[in-house]
Amino acid sequence: MGGGFGGLEAVLELERRFRDDPAVEITLVSENNYFLFTPLLPQIVSSTIEPRHIVQSLRDIRRERRFRILRARATGFDLARRQVATSVGALPFDYLIIALGSVPNFFGLEGAEHCFPLYSLEHAVVLRDHLLDLLEHADHEPDPERKRALLTLTVVGGGYTGVEVAAELRDLLFRHVVRRYRGIPADDVRLLLIEATAEILVGVDPKLAARARRKLERKGIELRTEARVARAGPGEVELKGGEKVPTGLVIWTAGVRANPLLESLPGPKNPAGRVLVTPQLHLPDHPRVFAIGDNAVVKGAPPEHTVPVAPLAMQQARVAAENVARGVARQAYVNFEYRPQGMLVSLGMNDAVVNLMGVRFSGYPAWLLWNAVHLLKLVGLKKQLQVALDWSLATLFPRDTSILRRPARCRLCESGASAATPR
Amino acid sequence: MGGGFGGLEAVLELERRFRDDPAVEITLVSENNYFLFTPLLPQIVSSTIEPRHIVQSLRDIRRERRFRILRARATGFDLARRQVATSVGALPFDYLIIALGSVPNFFGLEGAEHCFPLYSLEHAVVLRDHLLDLLEHADHEPDPERKRALLTLTVVGGGYTGVEVAAELRDLLFRHVVRRYRGIPADDVRLLLIEATAEILVGVDPKLAARARRKLERKGIELRTEARVARAGPGEVELKGGEKVPTGLVIWTAGVRANPLLESLPGPKNPAGRVLVTPQLHLPDHPRVFAIGDNAVVKGAPPEHTVPVAPLAMQQARVAAENVARGVARQAYVNFEYRPQGMLVSLGMNDAVVNLMGVRFSGYPAWLLWNAVHLLKLVGLKKQLQVALDWSLATLFPRDTSILRRPARCRLCESGASAATPR
Repeated sequence: MGGGFGGLEAVLELERRFRDDPAVEITLVSENNYFLFTPLLPQIVSSTIEPRHIVQSLRDIRRERRFRILRARATGFDLARRQVATSVGALPFDYLIIALGSVPNFFGLEGAEHCFPLYSLEHAVVLRDHLLDLLEHADHEPDPERKRALLTLTVVGGGYTGVEVAAELRDLLFRHVVRRYRGIPADDVRLLLIEATAEILVGVDPKLAARARRKLERKGIELRTEARVARAGPGEVELKGGEKVPTGLVIWTAGVRANPLLESLPGPKNPAGRVLVTPQLHLPDHPRVFAIGDNAVVKGAPPEHTVPVAPLAMQQARVAAENVARGVARQAYVNFEYRPQGMLVSLGMNDAVVNLMGVRFSGYPAWLLWNAVHLLKLVGLKKQLQVALDWSLATLFPRDTSILRRPARCRLCESGASAATPR
Repeated sequence: MGGGFGGLEAVLELERRFRDDPAVEITLVSENNYFLFTPLLPQIVSSTIEPRHIVQSLRDIRRERRFRILRARATGFDLARRQVATSVGALPFDYLIIALGSVPNFFGLEGAEHCFPLYSLEHAVVLRDHLLDLLEHADHEPDPERKRALLTLTVVGGGYTGVEVAAELRDLLFRHVVRRYRGIPADDVRLLLIEATAEILVGVDPKLAARARRKLERKGIELRTEARVARAGPGEVELKGGEKVPTGLVIWTAGVRANPLLESLPGPKNPAGRVLVTPQLHLPDHPRVFAIGDNAVVKGAPPEHTVPVAPLAMQQARVAAENVARGVARQAYVNFEYRPQGMLVSLGMNDAVVNLMGVRFSGYPAWLLWNAVHLLKLVGLKKQLQVALDWSLATLFPRDTSILRRPARCRLCESGASAATPR
């Protein structure tokens, strides 16, 4: 269940293991009919690449492979009867791998509806169009103070996504927007990154995190660490301690929790709603039900082995699939052991920080490596070509600032009134 | 007012005519912050090209030009006070060119809400995702009769758009979908084109229209001429005469009417809501208020000079701009005369019919010409490169069948129940 990094890898691994066994049926249940390459989401927000170039149709991935695809939303589990419920009916199983991913976690924030999360393709597309809509409003705004408030963009969460989206926004705004929107002077644009802990990129190598911090600050991004958002409202965020920051847009990258459907599973969960699984990755009392990726925490694993990153989900997927194969062959299960693969964080055009196999570096070479790795990891030659072309065109031509969707959740469009000052 | 073919051309022509007159202010009011190249909309539906590649940001078109841009929705006219009302406030004018384009015309059809129009980018994107959603449902549908009904696609309207979208759908379905969706056999797919008059492509050269008809029928598209839709319902269309056709999707390309805002203008309108203008393109009693393109009908013009096509709107835009310049210089206005520029209709991959300066031809050379003309007419080198690359990739790789938006208006998703048969 699930067509993300974990679910897709599990299905492909099962296909390899049961290639010569036509009696085994493999079914991938996915709400989306595509696989999303999430690491490039921040580049959708900044219009560097096209949304369609980081998705790959599941059927194109399958091609001649024999696994089945059910495009359906999972709606429940009936472990006793060995069935999962879906939006198009019940599906029986002998073995189940749960890889339903996660949803934004607002930690009960008051005014969460005013924040824009960034974990799905829809999030990225909606956020991009909302941002551009905001720029149009700011372009026309005659009041200087209101204009500066509209042009204050707040990113909450200093992890990978938060840092990368702040860097992407900076490129988009200062390299493209201020040249084209005559009502938007560079001095009025303010980019704020809010992080609850003492340092950004928690879990990454501390020296690299410090280097990233200096680089971001040099680019003009304001970093507020040890700061927490107490409340979000229309047009402002309030920090713990009472400080109110007038802001045009709040991007929420401060946390995820497991798919809410997992609450109905038996057994203990961690605070992020993940199921506690055995070292063999199955539910404690259900040896045929596995959970992986953002849906699971291995009992006793150190905190750095529970980060919601693709390599972890994919490594777990391969072990879960192996254990399914072992179960079918009546062999003993193997244990999962995580091998972290290093860190790559993009800091916008021509800059990144990298920690690979203990070697740390940053700047242009790191950025080239970041691009190469992400391109290689993309599924399918067509998408690799398209993203490479997008990147090439992005160095030669301006970014696309067309608003493709009608503005949603824009209080200015909805209220519909302000003085028109064409620019 | 309006950022389509007419409004944009008018602004560019005004800019040329008033280049040396800094006292003149030119403002483009547009609800979208982009220009849409509408002739390629059918290729969005079939996933041949990316939606963003046929839009061009208005500010990228403007660059160093001095005209102003107001991203706002026009909401009314106050001709006596020489003001237009917009969603962000009132805007005064000395001269006004109305180029607000058109909206779908359902001619009072019962069940119009079940039809998908195809005149804007949003229409094309929503239609594409709805079509792909339908294919996912059909893939899982165990009942053969219901499956055939889901896979019956009806296009209403045998004009340019209807013919081109039917041909594009045919390519998408037979070349890509039936190979990838194991639950969709080619024999179950039915494409129906319904046209009220005796022939498709009315207004085009009759010999070409007949040739196009033969070609479409050879491709397996069913043409029903002299057939009218009496009612659309969920899952079926009813024709005048009582015949009911179970259908998964109804695409509406059977007509447009002028932007409804024009109803508030003084003076007579034609049945499609267009303002009757003088041969100088202004309103009869308002010599400083011009209307062009889909918003106007020149009094006494023959019917073939009122078709809603881009060349007509652009020729009128240039004359209206010239007359504004003449008005400012206190010279007499010139009359508009339409020079039709020929016809190009694509019939899908490698096929088209063309009538240029009296020369008629069809097939692969016509298709190459169709591509070349449309590519040249696209605004901006970046977009030309992107569309050329899309076309090249489309010949080498499968189309993208990822559903990017959550299905809207899908009664199957909403009802949420049918037997799951993974494929």
